[in-house]
Amino acid sequence: MKKNLIAQSTLLILIAFFTINCNTSTQNSTTKNAEFGIVIHGGAGTILKENLSDSLEKAYHSKLQEALNAGHSILEKGGTSIDAVQAAIMIMENSPLFNAGKGAVFTNAGTNELDASFMDGSTLNAGAVGGVTIVKNPITAARAVMEKSDHVMLSGEGANQFAILQKLDTVDNSYFYTERRFKSLQKIKNSETGSSKLLSEHNDYKFGTVGAAALDKSGNLAAGTSTGGMTNKKYGRIGDSPIIGAGTYANNATCAISCTGHGEFFIRYAVAHDVSALMEYKNMTLEAAGNEVINNKLVKVEGSGGLISIDKNGNVSMPFNTAGMYRGYMLDNKEAKTFIFK
Amino acid sequence: MKKNLIAQSTLLILIAFFTINCNTSTQNSTTKNAEFGIVIHGGAGTILKENLSDSLEKAYHSKLQEALNAGHSILEKGGTSIDAVQAAIMIMENSPLFNAGKGAVFTNAGTNELDASFMDGSTLNAGAVGGVTIVKNPITAARAVMEKSDHVMLSGEGANQFAILQKLDTVDNSYFYTERRFKSLQKIKNSETGSSKLLSEHNDYKFGTVGAAALDKSGNLAAGTSTGGMTNKKYGRIGDSPIIGAGTYANNATCAISCTGHGEFFIRYAVAHDVSALMEYKNMTLEAAGNEVINNKLVKVEGSGGLISIDKNGNVSMPFNTAGMYRGYMLDNKEAKTFIFK
Repeated sequence: MKKNLIAQSTLLILIAFFTINCNTSTQNSTTKNAEFGIVIHGGAGTILKENLSDSLEKAYHSKLQEALNAGHSILEKGGTSIDAVQAAIMIMENSPLFNAGKGAVFTNAGTNELDASFMDGSTLNAGAVGGVTIVKNPITAARAVMEKSDHVMLSGEGANQFAILQKLDTVDNSYFYTERRFKSLQKIKNSETGSSKLLSEHNDYKFGTVGAAALDKSGNLAAGTSTGGMTNKKYGRIGDSPIIGAGTYANNATCAISCTGHGEFFIRYAVAHDVSALMEYKNMTLEAAGNEVINNKLVKVEGSGGLISIDKNGNVSMPFNTAGMYRGYMLDNKEAKTFIFK
Repeated sequence: MKKNLIAQSTLLILIAFFTINCNTSTQNSTTKNAEFGIVIHGGAGTILKENLSDSLEKAYHSKLQEALNAGHSILEKGGTSIDAVQAAIMIMENSPLFNAGKGAVFTNAGTNELDASFMDGSTLNAGAVGGVTIVKNPITAARAVMEKSDHVMLSGEGANQFAILQKLDTVDNSYFYTERRFKSLQKIKNSETGSSKLLSEHNDYKFGTVGAAALDKSGNLAAGTSTGGMTNKKYGRIGDSPIIGAGTYANNATCAISCTGHGEFFIRYAVAHDVSALMEYKNMTLEAAGNEVINNKLVKVEGSGGLISIDKNGNVSMPFNTAGMYRGYMLDNKEAKTFIFK
């Protein structure tokens, strides 16, 4: 009788063990971490403390804080995650500190061509523009494609025309000029003909992007990304920023994500959608899924970059495999937190 | 003692039950269905027997057969899946029967703008072009981007320039002209100003695409897609065909896929990558994963289209949710099979 009891207890323990293991060790957390919140990035790359002056470091923190506050104040009042994402991104687009909007990098032809994308996690609607040259805030064009067209992705001169029809703020291409970015283009062009040393010093030319992801009080997720692309880009190169599933993804069932990094790798690895798929199909947490893609899959193939993300329960994760990533988040009524280095 | 034995047996049975259930009911098949093979499509849509003359039906079967034979003969001789995919797609691009290459549909401006993409499942390298106007076989441009550039996606005039540098076959844009497609444009333009009846009759204007996926004798998978896009497209619209993870995906760990359908839905649902993710993360078979996306997720949102796919074990699946899809496959040394209707 006693032996039987021991056997029965062992049985129950083993059943419990196998049941738990069915969902793997990275169980999806179901407890609410925050009711609402926003997370942003201003690009990832070889950002080292010794290369950043104190005043510039301060300027980055201050601008990230301003972007977080703009998005957060919308969420706090019960506004949508879409409005919050747009407000945060516009502040970074308007700042010459980041490679998006004003201060975007230059193409090989000496022009500025901008890409952006937007996704609404509640409907899986999405919009994107590639290579716009006259839209002051490309994220507003991506949103207009999402909300006011039957399409997901518009490109080049056609995308400019659509923006004009939508009465978006347009500017002359020279609006995007900054001396700093123009000098970067000259340096890289010189290094193409001269030594390749300069090129590696300016490796950051690949990584500039801004992005935001938010969860609103109604439980809706949204994400957006905006960029000037790659310095010295040729041949109408399109990176991951305007590609839904690569640079941007949002799905109320899982999470909202914006990526930044060496775009070609982010397209080939369908990074943003892969993180969502790992959560949905493998029951991984946001943290585990993001790390699997950024710090395992991409690291193995030397795909540099990172992402910012927030899940349906208000968990935030900001993995990156570079020296630094301009980033921050603001949850519920807590203070904003901003970071630059590892 | 006897009771103890019963308890122990129950224990073993339950452990076995829970262990099996850990991998879900849609276990990935591990037996080899074919050593090598190719699967192709020539677009999905409202293709009804009553609307297709006997001679046209015969012409479609014959051209699909020719494309399959071209790819298959390369695989049979030990050639690569990449070469097989390109050969099959070029035959469909060169035929005015399909909306790709010669016979591509017209943009609103009365021009032909072509998109294509390619992915190598052994390296996850990928290449794509959006809006090329002078490349005779856009699939060759997608392959050149994959193999001869640091980029994944090039667009517009820049992509044309890249193709010229790569010494690809170029043609005047008028090469792509066919009377049938030009008339379709006029009909749709008239219906825009008149009744919308014509538009629904010409709903097929959304669906033309060609694609191929192959498994070679070395076990490498590859996939490619090529299209003229949407009749009457405006604003530089880009569909799913040149988007890696949406219209095309290949990964030796899972499968190779080419999609066709209402591109906007295929981008939003990251269709090609989602099928691969369901196989990799949920242990679904190729058949179950493709059906989940095409006949469940997309049907729920009225996203029309289909895909063709082959997995690492030579299983083939060709799900679609439209009335018809031009399609076929050829495995090992068996005969080619081609189909049009459900």
